[in-house]
Amino acid sequence: MDEELKEKTRKTAELLFRGVDTAEGGYALWRQFDKELAKQISMFFTGQLYSREVLSQKQRELCAVAALTVLNREEELRLHIHAARNVGATREEIAEVIFQMLVYGGAPVMVEGLKVAKRALEERGEWVEKKA
Amino acid sequence: MDEELKEKTRKTAELLFRGVDTAEGGYALWRQFDKELAKQISMFFTGQLYSREVLSQKQRELCAVAALTVLNREEELRLHIHAARNVGATREEIAEVIFQMLVYGGAPVMVEGLKVAKRALEERGEWVEKKA
Amino acid sequence: MDEELKEKTRKTAELLFRGVDTAEGGYALWRQFDKELAKQISMFFTGQLYSREVLSQKQRELCAVAALTVLNREEELRLHIHAARNVGATREEIAEVIFQMLVYGGAPVMVEGLKVAKRALEERGEWVEKKA
Amino acid sequence: MDEELKEKTRKTAELLFRGVDTAEGGYALWRQFDKELAKQISMFFTGQLYSREVLSQKQRELCAVAALTVLNREEELRLHIHAARNVGATREEIAEVIFQMLVYGGAPVMVEGLKVAKRALEERGEWVEKKA
Amino acid sequence: MDEELKEKTRKTAELLFRGVDTAEGGYALWRQFDKELAKQISMFFTGQLYSREVLSQKQRELCAVAALTVLNREEELRLHIHAARNVGATREEIAEVIFQMLVYGGAPVMVEGLKVAKRALEERGEWVEKKA
Amino acid sequence: MDEELKEKTRKTAELLFRGVDTAEGGYALWRQFDKELAKQISMFFTGQLYSREVLSQKQRELCAVAALTVLNREEELRLHIHAARNVGATREEIAEVIFQMLVYGGAPVMVEGLKVAKRALEERGEWVEKKA
Repeated sequence: MDEELKEKTRKTAELLFRGVDTAEGGYALWRQFDKELAKQISMFFTGQLYSREVLSQKQRELCAVAALTVLNREEELRLHIHAARNVGATREEIAEVIFQMLVYGGAPVMVEGLKVAKRALEERGEWVEKKA
Repeated sequence: MDEELKEKTRKTAELLFRGVDTAEGGYALWRQFDKELAKQISMFFTGQLYSREVLSQKQRELCAVAALTVLNREEELRLHIHAARNVGATREEIAEVIFQMLVYGGAPVMVEGLKVAKRALEERGEWVEKKA
Repeated sequence: MDEELKEKTRKTAELLFRGVDTAEGGYALWRQFDKELAKQISMFFTGQLYSREVLSQKQRELCAVAALTVLNREEELRLHIHAARNVGATREEIAEVIFQMLVYGGAPVMVEGLKVAKRALEERGEWVEKKA
Repeated sequence: MDEELKEKTRKTAELLFRGVDTAEGGYALWRQFDKELAKQISMFFTGQLYSREVLSQKQRELCAVAALTVLNREEELRLHIHAARNVGATREEIAEVIFQMLVYGGAPVMVEGLKVAKRALEERGEWVEKKA
Repeated sequence: MDEELKEKTRKTAELLFRGVDTAEGGYALWRQFDKELAKQISMFFTGQLYSREVLSQKQRELCAVAALTVLNREEELRLHIHAARNVGATREEIAEVIFQMLVYGGAPVMVEGLKVAKRALEERGEWVEKKA
Repeated sequence: MDEELKEKTRKTAELLFRGVDTAEGGYALWRQFDKELAKQISMFFTGQLYSREVLSQKQRELCAVAALTVLNREEELRLHIHAARNVGATREEIAEVIFQMLVYGGAPVMVEGLKVAKRALEERGEWVEKKA
């Protein structure tokens, strides 16, 4: 049972965050403070929540982008923009979610969200400016 | 052009919020303070932003549910749960988005979000408890 | 010195909040928990900060309306809408500040702010709907 | 293993929330949406996190009161004021934490926190006004 | 009509943000994602909202400083401190608004606001320390 | 009386923040804007609030860590992690408070809080990774 959960955690983490530089904020950091707790948190969030199948992974990640934009959590937003791309969201869809957040969270969080999106896309070598 | 925008505003508002009681917080209230400004705001948000087609209406509304849950905006969340149902999101998908928000916004906003969801579904006559 | 501060506190409180029902959230409540601390807080906020003269009282209160709207602090917003009226802000100026907050805090806080403004103006017998 | 976690969850929940009316926002509500997920969330938060022993339960609950006050989460704050009393925090300590939160979260969240504290203490039959 | 709105947008932007380095977060960035949407957002916020005349521009900008301070939106705060200076607010008035925000948003947002104000004034060559 | 308060302010500041680099955000900055107001704020927060004895200094500082983590105020959090260590909280207790905040404020604020804790402990020469 526990092995099954570990495997689901590993696979889901791989699916969402493969190739993403977590910049010292991820699982490795948590482990530096408390190894057992780090494992429990990771298995709950990634293994139990993120592996659910009521929403598609793309749907879930666009909702993560929405939430992290209005909360202005720049580093986690960067990670989930990568995850959204990893599970098939287009650059246009990601930008659109961020633009729409000005309705709920105001213009400043939209602006910061776009900056983060540009940076994440640059990290992936996918940044292309829109032509008129 | 302006007529076209007015029509798009009207149609999008109808699509999203048909049959929804806005409980004195919506367009009618804004007009009680300033009729011209109310029209401009409505045409921008509903006519220009909500009518865009990069995201499906269902996708956009689930992102709205995500953002409004983590921001703990209960009344607007209620409206957009109605809108999400109006454009085809299932009850399970809406609940799933709210549950997932505990990752980004913490447990209290998830709990309040579920309360709002239950109320909105009751208003629609769609509330059914899950069997074991 | 202490007497001078007490007097300034009393006069400033009178200027801003005369005739306002604080609905069990004000100074009387704080005193029910700790009389000495309640006095210190009141003398600092009302006596030292609110009595300053770099900004006009009207300017200060409109800034309070702005901050409390974007933070969605409904009860304190109600009190400061009364205070803004007490020191000479017009109904139109107060509504305008709240409308503008959609830029910084998003539409939901603007909507809640307008509801609070309507209620506060009704409490004062000053609510008048705008004609077209 | 799973049985052990269930038992720890049950005991910790009993320790913290015995006799507390969760007002339709707690575990019972979550189960109405999704029974399996409700169990996983409860076992993670209550069974794994709240049962840890690095902090005393009193220490943990006063920190919960601090966080929920500055976030202005009134219903969850009510629950954790009950929990704080259940694990030995005094009324004075709880009020003191709330008062101190004006430094980090501003006066409005302090005021709302005190209102919630008064209500929770009244629910417990423990409300006593301070004499001068 | 559309031309009139474009002209009002251009003039208002010039009035508020002339000489201000928007540090890659402004209109140019939005256009890199979506040119048409960037134009619509700019015309709504700058052309329709910021050009209104119920409040003086100075009054509006001091309210923007208030809101952006309590929300801790540092980059947008920097821009609106420049705008406030551009429309006639004094350095003392801007600092006073930020100081007062400790009442509504707590001390940390006041401290960060003062840092931003110092930086913005330095950018303008207007930074002068107060003598005792 | 005023001398007594000044002395209490000085002693409490020394107790909490001795040896801490406030990185241009502290009392010195406030004085650059307004010397008299800086003194009043400092005497109220440090002299009157932080010197109270209902809570132990360790308890108060752990509550400060809790509040500043969920509010995501990184610079003030850094200062109060130093203060918590200065008054006797262990590294494990501080990390535990931050970990627990994922319940109330979500995972992103926990992650940022841990980063700040690592940095503060490094500044003190007290950073030690946990062994398995």
